[in-house]
Amino acid sequence: MLKKVLLGSLGAALVLTAGILLGHFGIQRGSTAPDWVMDHLSHDRSLVPMCLSRELTKVPHMATSPGDEQTVQYMLKRWQDPDTGLDQAWREEYKVYLSFPDPNTPNKVTVVSPSDAVLYTAREKEKAYSSDQEDPEVVQPYAAYAPAGHPKGRLVYANQGKPSDYFLLNQTLNLTGTVAITRYGGEGRAGKAINAAPYGVIGVLVYTDPWDINDGKMSDNNETYPYSWYMPPSGVERGSFNTHYGDMLTPYLAAKDDTYRIPEKNITGIPPIPTQPIGFEDAYALICELGGEPAPSEWQGAFNCTYNFGGPGFKPTSNFNNSDVKLDIYNREELKNSANVMGVIRGSVEPDRYVIYGNHRDSWVHGAIDPSSGTSVMLEVTRVLGRMVKQGKWRPRRSIIFGSWGAEEFGLIGSTEYTEEYYSKLSERSVAYINVDIACLIAFLQVKTPGSDSSSVYDNWIRYFNRTSPAYGVIPNVGFLTGAGSDYAAFIHFLGITSMDISYTYDRTKTRARIYPAYHTAYDTFDYASKFIDPGFTSHQTVARTAGNVLMRLADSLLLPFNCSDYAETLEGYLSKAMELNTVLEYPVPAPISEPLQTAVRNFRSAAARLDHALSILRPLKVRRINDQLMLLDRAFLDPVAFPDRYGYRHVIWASSKAGQATFPGLADAYTRAASTGLDNDWKEAHRQLSILIQAIQGAAHTLGDTI
Amino acid sequence: MLKKVLLGSLGAALVLTAGILLGHFGIQRGSTAPDWVMDHLSHDRSLVPMCLSRELTKVPHMATSPGDEQTVQYMLKRWQDPDTGLDQAWREEYKVYLSFPDPNTPNKVTVVSPSDAVLYTAREKEKAYSSDQEDPEVVQPYAAYAPAGHPKGRLVYANQGKPSDYFLLNQTLNLTGTVAITRYGGEGRAGKAINAAPYGVIGVLVYTDPWDINDGKMSDNNETYPYSWYMPPSGVERGSFNTHYGDMLTPYLAAKDDTYRIPEKNITGIPPIPTQPIGFEDAYALICELGGEPAPSEWQGAFNCTYNFGGPGFKPTSNFNNSDVKLDIYNREELKNSANVMGVIRGSVEPDRYVIYGNHRDSWVHGAIDPSSGTSVMLEVTRVLGRMVKQGKWRPRRSIIFGSWGAEEFGLIGSTEYTEEYYSKLSERSVAYINVDIACLIAFLQVKTPGSDSSSVYDNWIRYFNRTSPAYGVIPNVGFLTGAGSDYAAFIHFLGITSMDISYTYDRTKTRARIYPAYHTAYDTFDYASKFIDPGFTSHQTVARTAGNVLMRLADSLLLPFNCSDYAETLEGYLSKAMELNTVLEYPVPAPISEPLQTAVRNFRSAAARLDHALSILRPLKVRRINDQLMLLDRAFLDPVAFPDRYGYRHVIWASSKAGQATFPGLADAYTRAASTGLDNDWKEAHRQLSILIQAIQGAAHTLGDTI
Repeated sequence: MLKKVLLGSLGAALVLTAGILLGHFGIQRGSTAPDWVMDHLSHDRSLVPMCLSRELTKVPHMATSPGDEQTVQYMLKRWQDPDTGLDQAWREEYKVYLSFPDPNTPNKVTVVSPSDAVLYTAREKEKAYSSDQEDPEVVQPYAAYAPAGHPKGRLVYANQGKPSDYFLLNQTLNLTGTVAITRYGGEGRAGKAINAAPYGVIGVLVYTDPWDINDGKMSDNNETYPYSWYMPPSGVERGSFNTHYGDMLTPYLAAKDDTYRIPEKNITGIPPIPTQPIGFEDAYALICELGGEPAPSEWQGAFNCTYNFGGPGFKPTSNFNNSDVKLDIYNREELKNSANVMGVIRGSVEPDRYVIYGNHRDSWVHGAIDPSSGTSVMLEVTRVLGRMVKQGKWRPRRSIIFGSWGAEEFGLIGSTEYTEEYYSKLSERSVAYINVDIACLIAFLQVKTPGSDSSSVYDNWIRYFNRTSPAYGVIPNVGFLTGAGSDYAAFIHFLGITSMDISYTYDRTKTRARIYPAYHTAYDTFDYASKFIDPGFTSHQTVARTAGNVLMRLADSLLLPFNCSDYAETLEGYLSKAMELNTVLEYPVPAPISEPLQTAVRNFRSAAARLDHALSILRPLKVRRINDQLMLLDRAFLDPVAFPDRYGYRHVIWASSKAGQATFPGLADAYTRAASTGLDNDWKEAHRQLSILIQAIQGAAHTLGDTI
Repeated sequence: MLKKVLLGSLGAALVLTAGILLGHFGIQRGSTAPDWVMDHLSHDRSLVPMCLSRELTKVPHMATSPGDEQTVQYMLKRWQDPDTGLDQAWREEYKVYLSFPDPNTPNKVTVVSPSDAVLYTAREKEKAYSSDQEDPEVVQPYAAYAPAGHPKGRLVYANQGKPSDYFLLNQTLNLTGTVAITRYGGEGRAGKAINAAPYGVIGVLVYTDPWDINDGKMSDNNETYPYSWYMPPSGVERGSFNTHYGDMLTPYLAAKDDTYRIPEKNITGIPPIPTQPIGFEDAYALICELGGEPAPSEWQGAFNCTYNFGGPGFKPTSNFNNSDVKLDIYNREELKNSANVMGVIRGSVEPDRYVIYGNHRDSWVHGAIDPSSGTSVMLEVTRVLGRMVKQGKWRPRRSIIFGSWGAEEFGLIGSTEYTEEYYSKLSERSVAYINVDIACLIAFLQVKTPGSDSSSVYDNWIRYFNRTSPAYGVIPNVGFLTGAGSDYAAFIHFLGITSMDISYTYDRTKTRARIYPAYHTAYDTFDYASKFIDPGFTSHQTVARTAGNVLMRLADSLLLPFNCSDYAETLEGYLSKAMELNTVLEYPVPAPISEPLQTAVRNFRSAAARLDHALSILRPLKVRRINDQLMLLDRAFLDPVAFPDRYGYRHVIWASSKAGQATFPGLADAYTRAASTGLDNDWKEAHRQLSILIQAIQGAAHTLGDTI
């Protein structure tokens, strides 16, 4: 999981791209749907709680990783079970480009004196304090796709490794030949090394500052796990250090045995220099010894010392004075098989319309929460639905495809290869994609679990994570899927399939923990999850019920439960933010060039309103036509040439943006760049992005339009 | 019209991408369709001849071009007529980049002596020998998009201006500073100058050799028009000298007022040096005086002299000895408004499915045949159908969109901007595109016109242009739409909409005339057309009936009249041609890498066969689903990254190919290149093309597949 944006509440947080807001956990649409549609929905409403609540008494948890092939076999067995399995289940094999540490020669970080005497060695692995680990040997921490090498140089502290961080540092110091230590956050993993290299930095360390993940807690007695949910000092966050998603050797092509592979040297977006993650106990030992000037206040973390830039190197008073930091990195890349496990419930009326539900299967170490909380929810949903199908009690109107993706942690590879291989069919027929990988993060901050509480998910949601809509007043808030945080990326950004990511998370006002403390460390165990994340697994049940409910509604509703007026509201929000940020160009003509953009957004709103009206006078024969309009709405925002340098990003509304503002991403980024450089070519690109955007929004309005 | 491939017969030649072969002018599908479908088709069959044959007594001909705006108004009036018009008609405006000669300072080609004395001046304009020209002043001949300039240099003869022609010429002569004279054919218009520039050539002349267009006839007495259909010596073929189609300043964006435009200097694919077309009377005066060695026999044309390479320059014995040829070109580019006229008949049952019928409206001079023969056919079809609609007698099942495109002659601009502006809607909803621009070319070679003959179009077609199919035996042949010859280009190559181009043409065994002799000259007049091309306009009637029949069948058939097994036959033909040409790579592994390609083609065939079977047991509820599979079949072959350097080419089966073989275009071109250079990178590209192809064919098979 590369999740960049995680919006939370002490309720259920849904991160999705189109308002799926019908039904009892969302917003009542009032009288806009005719009676026969509401009848059908009422049927849904009674069905879902009936079947899910009785079944989900306990969600079994796959707390350990008994090797990927064993998990594949386990899932196939579950999905092929004659009593509770699906109509069909199979595996899809790909040969993908992965990066591993050397199991025999661990990566090392040492402080060496001028005579190469070892003064300090970073610990090589974590101990997972879990009582029931089948595999107590933890996988070495490493930065996947960072090159092997043995750089040695003076240490500097570079904050989050953003371009602006290195720029500032370089104004004080000569960075050539240095090793930079950076903290997680603020910049993608690979970026910390990619941004460093142009300044002559030869190696990068990354750690998680207790400020960012532990709310400042860092002593190793009763403050951290196993005494609380906070990460122990030895915990090291692993991760894939790449910028693009999918198999890097086969962009836009499924990675079959015979598929063309680009030369490794043509891979972009990975660290050009050796890089290694370490725990904060090691980071503490290094950073608090650094010399040089004090770093700015916003660079300071939770350590009980002043974070200095580095001389470069350590203080004259330090034992490490005049010493270098040396990285010994033995990572190597390998082509390896990776499987997706696929399962299907065939639709009864519209088998050629798909609702896809997916989660990845691989984890960095034990992965009790990421991804097994999501996998166990998926298994439970398939077990419940599968049994109804096998007993002949129910069959959805549309087909449901379940996907257990491989190699997500290496860059969403399994799901991306799947979308590449089945590009045309999925584009033509998919109604929606639902992703559940980190099912629940209720953690110790929970007040009442949904299971022991009479308040609904809807009540919790609207209480802890709401917004005020011009149309509806106060409603549950829904985040935007703008990045490539999990396996939804290829579905929404590459294929333009309406997608959602469901997780139950904590109240952001009570902690500033980035994701959850044990994220991507060896401490993400069954013990950790059952003690601190979801005692009794009641939140798992809630997520399973919510996801199952959404899934069945998407698969069963005669009319797709999409509300395109909510899309119009988002576009209007984007537009006013764009105006506010002054990103609406006055170039190359002084006339208000924002007018065509405003017109496009207005046209979209009118088309959405007309479609709403059409729904109110809907006759059954038109259902498929209107459902197609809704299904294809996100596709209309795709432009394959909008972002030529960014693999798989084609959606001009949901693409991630450096500007980090809720507005049109391509336009905002291009404008920001042009405003900073003032270059004519950059202004041209901003104008190009504006034209692309207008055409896409107009095109989407056409998609919503009645007929011709 | 940039038509590169024109397949003909003394029958009707259809150039299309998917077999539209149902009904009485095509192949009976036998018993594969159930009774209720055949009933519906029988209804079609009786309807079409009834309404079209009675109405089409005479096709009025728009022989002259009374200015484009007047034509726009005329068409709008016809399509908005309360008794015979369409449901709706409107204009769509674009601002596009065009190239014109200077009306006040005509382009000039002169032979000048060393003292700059004028020895010979090419005539500046043709006289159109037409009795009823409203505008006897003809538009100057010029090469649209060739730059202005005044190059002066020794003349050389460069055959067709292909890369191999200049390569050969350069082995004999130093081409630096020369002016090259080339003949039409064998190479795109712009290519003749683009290929010349790297050798230091500073100007290019282009003419039509009587060998290529006139079957060798060239004396100006009774051999040529007005005494025959052959082009007079003064005739000059105009044309757009560009390689990419669509408005060149707004690739992938509709050319609205505010749209981003690339800098003019970034335009590629146009002549880098001044270029000018001349008539063969001028070419004769120049070529027969050239000195130097005799050109090879395949470079010789119909002039009664030996075509020499040039010294460079003229023979010592010539009056032009030691003289240069000088071009004075005053072309200039302008942003101009160009309109498409659009009209619609709304569908009764599936208004959100479109059959599009189009032709361009602009011509180089009078354009009696190109495009007015096609326009008059379209107007007649809309008049007949419009009256039926207005009288309440008939309304098609699906919507029909008619498009009268502007600025086709400058590079298919009107139709391309339309596909860009309505990209998503057209992709989602279009069933097929029909193009009729040069309706009829029956010419003096006709034996019997269809009107005075009892034999059907089908009979003529199968007699003069047939092939032997493994499945059906001898059947009418259908060409491939692989190039960008007319307005179908953006529909098939950019949008992947099944397209056809209909024209009635002459027997290729009786003439080797490229297109037709008056093509793009001032002699393409009503007089010429009515005397030599289609006396009595009976062929126009035949084309109108055929096009109307196809149109109504596409718009009305419950089941779309596409036969995807014919597509499989084409892919199998492509495959065996690829094997034969040895274009199936043995790189980078020695194992037979052709196997995945063979598997993909086999999978497509099986999926097509299964769909055929599904048709035989079809139930009405499944019709829309199967129609969608058929409609989206061509879309499944699109790959936006397959040909990154070629604007608008995304269809991996129908893209044009330099190899000129009936096989997979991307693979064939990449292989040819790799085989000639032997470069590692070129072999890699060949492998990439192979992988793209396999994935696309597999994807298309998935599209034809039943459900999941």
